[in-house]
Amino acid sequence: MAVKLNTNYLKSFINENELSHIAPSCKAALDALHSGNGAGSDFLGWLTLPADYDKDEFKRIKAAAEKIKSQSEVVIVLGIGGSYLGARAVIEALRGSLYNSRFKPEIYFAGNSISPTYMNEVLSLVEGRDFSVIVVSKSGTTTETALAFRVFKKLIEERYGADSKNRIFAVTDKARGTLKELSDKMGYETFVIPDNVGGRYSVLTAVGLLPIAVAGCDIDALMAGAKAAMDELKDTDLNKNACCKYAALRNILARKGFSVEMLVAYENFFMMMNEWFKQLFGESDGKDGKGLFPASATFSTDLHSLGQFIQEGSNIIFETVVQFKNTDNDFFLENDADNLDGLNFLSDQNMSNVSEKAFLGTLLAHTEGGVPNIILELDKLDEFNLGYLLFFFMKACALSGYILGVNPFDQPGVEAYKKNMFALLGKPGYEADKAALEAQIQKLNS
Amino acid sequence: MAVKLNTNYLKSFINENELSHIAPSCKAALDALHSGNGAGSDFLGWLTLPADYDKDEFKRIKAAAEKIKSQSEVVIVLGIGGSYLGARAVIEALRGSLYNSRFKPEIYFAGNSISPTYMNEVLSLVEGRDFSVIVVSKSGTTTETALAFRVFKKLIEERYGADSKNRIFAVTDKARGTLKELSDKMGYETFVIPDNVGGRYSVLTAVGLLPIAVAGCDIDALMAGAKAAMDELKDTDLNKNACCKYAALRNILARKGFSVEMLVAYENFFMMMNEWFKQLFGESDGKDGKGLFPASATFSTDLHSLGQFIQEGSNIIFETVVQFKNTDNDFFLENDADNLDGLNFLSDQNMSNVSEKAFLGTLLAHTEGGVPNIILELDKLDEFNLGYLLFFFMKACALSGYILGVNPFDQPGVEAYKKNMFALLGKPGYEADKAALEAQIQKLNS
Repeated sequence: MAVKLNTNYLKSFINENELSHIAPSCKAALDALHSGNGAGSDFLGWLTLPADYDKDEFKRIKAAAEKIKSQSEVVIVLGIGGSYLGARAVIEALRGSLYNSRFKPEIYFAGNSISPTYMNEVLSLVEGRDFSVIVVSKSGTTTETALAFRVFKKLIEERYGADSKNRIFAVTDKARGTLKELSDKMGYETFVIPDNVGGRYSVLTAVGLLPIAVAGCDIDALMAGAKAAMDELKDTDLNKNACCKYAALRNILARKGFSVEMLVAYENFFMMMNEWFKQLFGESDGKDGKGLFPASATFSTDLHSLGQFIQEGSNIIFETVVQFKNTDNDFFLENDADNLDGLNFLSDQNMSNVSEKAFLGTLLAHTEGGVPNIILELDKLDEFNLGYLLFFFMKACALSGYILGVNPFDQPGVEAYKKNMFALLGKPGYEADKAALEAQIQKLNS
Repeated sequence: MAVKLNTNYLKSFINENELSHIAPSCKAALDALHSGNGAGSDFLGWLTLPADYDKDEFKRIKAAAEKIKSQSEVVIVLGIGGSYLGARAVIEALRGSLYNSRFKPEIYFAGNSISPTYMNEVLSLVEGRDFSVIVVSKSGTTTETALAFRVFKKLIEERYGADSKNRIFAVTDKARGTLKELSDKMGYETFVIPDNVGGRYSVLTAVGLLPIAVAGCDIDALMAGAKAAMDELKDTDLNKNACCKYAALRNILARKGFSVEMLVAYENFFMMMNEWFKQLFGESDGKDGKGLFPASATFSTDLHSLGQFIQEGSNIIFETVVQFKNTDNDFFLENDADNLDGLNFLSDQNMSNVSEKAFLGTLLAHTEGGVPNIILELDKLDEFNLGYLLFFFMKACALSGYILGVNPFDQPGVEAYKKNMFALLGKPGYEADKAALEAQIQKLNS
């Protein structure tokens, strides 16, 4: 298996009998997921996607990516939440956090905020440079994305006239919605967000794959990795299913009073994967007053900022560490004849070896400090392993939600702020709420 | 006052009598801080720095920044923890999160990890391009920074020969340490990390100011803002001192069982400020088994990832929202004749107005969902206001630590992992620990 679960450092935190107690819940969760009898089972498309994805569309994605690359110095990807996090996470993981300084075409994610400053910044990046737009929205009416799309659509039309339709690519509903309608009318090429795949589980649909392919990543290998995970992570015996066991462990730790799960990696390129993970688990777990708060850190960087808290602060955290055992990008540390900085004890070896010792030293220090550590081991970060890991996390998240007793596929709480915002902005249909909210604000501020 | 505290949305969470109960602790904290009688009082330099900073060095910082700008396409800043977070946070806040795509010289932060991949990435950025290095380390022996400095120093010497000394700038101890010694020997220009200013409180020393000036920010205005905060935030009456009241409120909420403080802003440019805040408060609070876990989010972006959890998940979070009332970079939303996306209810107004309604709608939704919201209001984000906010947070952090009953200026827990790491790497002097740790690892893995 491409992802191995190392529980050796959990021994002082979790007893074997705790695992046997939770095993029936895990089996029930697996059964519910595989049989499609659990909560939210209209949204299980991601579970078989690595095998039954649309092969023709997959070819179109690769062709569109080549077209976009050849015609663009800059690509703007418009989308929010699950409509951008997966793509950005995979691109940075595989091509580095400094992608835009090192590769072409530059790729910027927008349509994910209501900041005028950011809008102006992104607009300045396409001044005098050829660009294309990928817009990702199931309905076409998501406020942040649709607002930005208005702006970029107009700009493309002013710049490219009749050729505009070749520079706009839409990932949206297969048949309905304003973005699909507009795309058909204007002649944009479209790609499908399947009805049975929710936003945070959509990284292996066109939502993720199109931008990922534009960035030059091998999406065949990515899907192959996910397919391997799909095939391998089915056993109901916890000791033969790392994915299910990870779901069990995080629930056991939650029940023991740990309320924050911190995802950790020792690589800058994993930073946006952390953000993807936080949406996946936070939005799936966090309902009915339950759920582990999802946090993240990049070590050793953040050992110099959050390390003190983890080691000696409130004892509410456990860590899930993603460890890469090898790398294709190692760096040899040379000896320094002067050794003024006293660092020769680190030299004459690869940097990855120093990083591994930092990992081990931290592991021992944090567990000693009362912080449980779950370790997920991968051979290295490449398309295959990352595809495996993405599927591993999505399945673990679904199972974990079932064990927790929530629907891991809905997000009812996201509507609350939108409803208020629409009312305050005078959206048609929300008139009654507007007056009530304004009165509430006035009362609170008096 | 440049930072106003809005507590109108806390009414259902905190009673007036709770504030009067904590007031004596706040007064004691202020007295201890101002008199220098509290814990860690050897590290109070930051408290008067906006007035008594070294004016001659300040001039040298500006001159060095001009020199660096004129001779460099790329600037590499080497430092970890407090030796890079403040600089990066201020640069992104004032110049945007896309600084490197929009401005010259490009500025990259390194020496803050042990990742060989990241090292290779940063090295690729200086290939064939003129560059300078700013190295920030009090001792010169911090592993991550010193390792990277070895590499970049060698590269500069190979590339520039005798002119190397004009391309390396060191921010370090005023008299001792390997970096100071090396700098004096080689003829690098040096700047001082004062003995009485700890890393996380050092943003307004050369540590922060030199990179900030290189990025084209007005460091005079930044210091003037901090000076205003220094002068204004002294009152022992909580209702006349927003800084002290904020420290009181977060302690009250912590005692009520909220264990996570989430810093929130509605601007992408604030993302690294969040990271700076997390080190400041996490490292100051997180000891003796205490402290609020520091988290962060950027809205409305993360309302589509963390919003569900905040609204309906475990009730352990309160939010501290930094609100900018105005902006110099607004964006006018035009009407669309077709209105296919149905967004015309948002048009014919500035985007900042839509953002304000998102803020209000979220505020009402989250407080309704049981999440207390503290609001810090600023007129806008510019050098003056940011300088004020930096000082506001540092002073609030110090006061908050005293109210919590910890030393807000030390970080004893950071040594635990370093000690293990050095032993495992065979650093001279750690031989005894090495065998014990290796035996422990073997036992855990058997």
